[in-house]
Amino acid sequence: MKFQYILELFGTGFFAVSGGLVANRKSNHDWFGVSFIGFITAIGGGSLRDMMLGSYPLSWIGDINFLYAILIGILLTRLFYNQLIKLQKALFLFDSIGIAMFTILGVEKTLGLGFNPVIAAIMGMFSAVMGGVIRDVLTNEIPVLFRKNIYASACLAGAIFYLILDYFNCVRNINIAGSMSLIFAIRVLAVKFNITLPQFKTQK
Amino acid sequence: MKFQYILELFGTGFFAVSGGLVANRKSNHDWFGVSFIGFITAIGGGSLRDMMLGSYPLSWIGDINFLYAILIGILLTRLFYNQLIKLQKALFLFDSIGIAMFTILGVEKTLGLGFNPVIAAIMGMFSAVMGGVIRDVLTNEIPVLFRKNIYASACLAGAIFYLILDYFNCVRNINIAGSMSLIFAIRVLAVKFNITLPQFKTQK
Amino acid sequence: MKFQYILELFGTGFFAVSGGLVANRKSNHDWFGVSFIGFITAIGGGSLRDMMLGSYPLSWIGDINFLYAILIGILLTRLFYNQLIKLQKALFLFDSIGIAMFTILGVEKTLGLGFNPVIAAIMGMFSAVMGGVIRDVLTNEIPVLFRKNIYASACLAGAIFYLILDYFNCVRNINIAGSMSLIFAIRVLAVKFNITLPQFKTQK
Repeated sequence: MKFQYILELFGTGFFAVSGGLVANRKSNHDWFGVSFIGFITAIGGGSLRDMMLGSYPLSWIGDINFLYAILIGILLTRLFYNQLIKLQKALFLFDSIGIAMFTILGVEKTLGLGFNPVIAAIMGMFSAVMGGVIRDVLTNEIPVLFRKNIYASACLAGAIFYLILDYFNCVRNINIAGSMSLIFAIRVLAVKFNITLPQFKTQK
Repeated sequence: MKFQYILELFGTGFFAVSGGLVANRKSNHDWFGVSFIGFITAIGGGSLRDMMLGSYPLSWIGDINFLYAILIGILLTRLFYNQLIKLQKALFLFDSIGIAMFTILGVEKTLGLGFNPVIAAIMGMFSAVMGGVIRDVLTNEIPVLFRKNIYASACLAGAIFYLILDYFNCVRNINIAGSMSLIFAIRVLAVKFNITLPQFKTQK
Repeated sequence: MKFQYILELFGTGFFAVSGGLVANRKSNHDWFGVSFIGFITAIGGGSLRDMMLGSYPLSWIGDINFLYAILIGILLTRLFYNQLIKLQKALFLFDSIGIAMFTILGVEKTLGLGFNPVIAAIMGMFSAVMGGVIRDVLTNEIPVLFRKNIYASACLAGAIFYLILDYFNCVRNINIAGSMSLIFAIRVLAVKFNITLPQFKTQK
């Protein structure tokens, strides 16, 4: 549990970094606006998940450490902005770890509240991607869901994989490691080999 | 109750079709993104209503049949895409039935939870239109509320009509049929005769 | 309490005015769409705060007077539209009073529910600014947070100021007056002297 908690704090902080970097790309944003967007990005997915499940208090409201994680994330973004911008590759890897982690955390939390596994899979995906979706809506960008094709679908695939292993009584830690690796691998390979999902229906 | 439940499932599936068709009009969307938007469109209005009322679990979280309805809706959209695009008129009629149905379902649910009739009217309208509003925000379109003038207002009118008949102890089934027909009629006639509401205040 | 309640109703009505004016600037909006946006602007911040805190019923759902305040606000916007448009200065002052008031009301409500003061500060700010953020998202504008720099930050500063005085057992009425004045003063002076916060990180 300890390790999972530390991972969750780390992931929250990282989402704050990701939100801050995206917000700052738009011009004329002061440090407060950028921090605000970083904050919303970090708490958005988990908050929406918990509000849909009626699970109160929301993680960051019940445990102040999440706010510290976000503050540290934003501070690091400011201090190492130039390096972070250059480290696009490292950032992408961290982001992929982040969504993998949040997906499985969301699945486990939803299952723990007694909901149906199908709901858990959806909520796992929501936890991972909705912070970014809200960030994009607030900064008037086309939501990430529509730009990077293999993104939410990788999360959903990993969530379903976790649930299948769980159904067959796989040891929890192995399951977490395996399904997180799957999400990570799908996304990294998809970007490396430029794999995209087929279009829904080609326009004529 | 049985009939109402089937109608609600049908309506949810239809909203998924509507969301999928709108999402696919934007270019470069893969099947996952289109399905995701279809899903959000279908659950958005009812979820927001229930989250505002504090009524848990949300319909689709407590009853997995709603997810099946959405899946079928998205599948049908994919299979019959070309036909659906041509059947704009049929689609419009289905959409009008859908919002009429969701309005009255929302009104009845809110009343059943013991809230004020005025709140029930607003929640009825929210149930019907908010899925579409969220869909438009996510796809970066001007929300439907501002494009098709007689839309939310038809829902609100029908909701108020239901509440008035209810106040005078009208038989429930007759009331449902009557107020749904009113919403349907207002919207269809408004589009047919190109009736719009007056502007709030003309710009000079 | 009486005075605070009247202030809250007045502030809700004013947010409806503000929402209506912004919505009407966009072309082709009928009176219903403009009123709808006014309504959402007025209830958005407080509703989001209460939904995040799990505090039900939402203010306007539990007390119908808030709807009357919104209706009156929208009616006055329609009747005195030309005058209001000319009174940009008066409007700005009213808006500044409105956000100051909502910030402190949000802080007090959150504290009253037993949450951490840091959460209370964030929720105070959310109460004040989120109605406007939702309004801007729905009308497809860049959220106000990114246009007027000293806006949410003034609310957060006032909220923190309130919490510090509260910690030192300052008399409540004096504290409310002082922290609201601080928010008001920061915003008015920032606009008058064109003060903005530094950018997060200048683009190269």
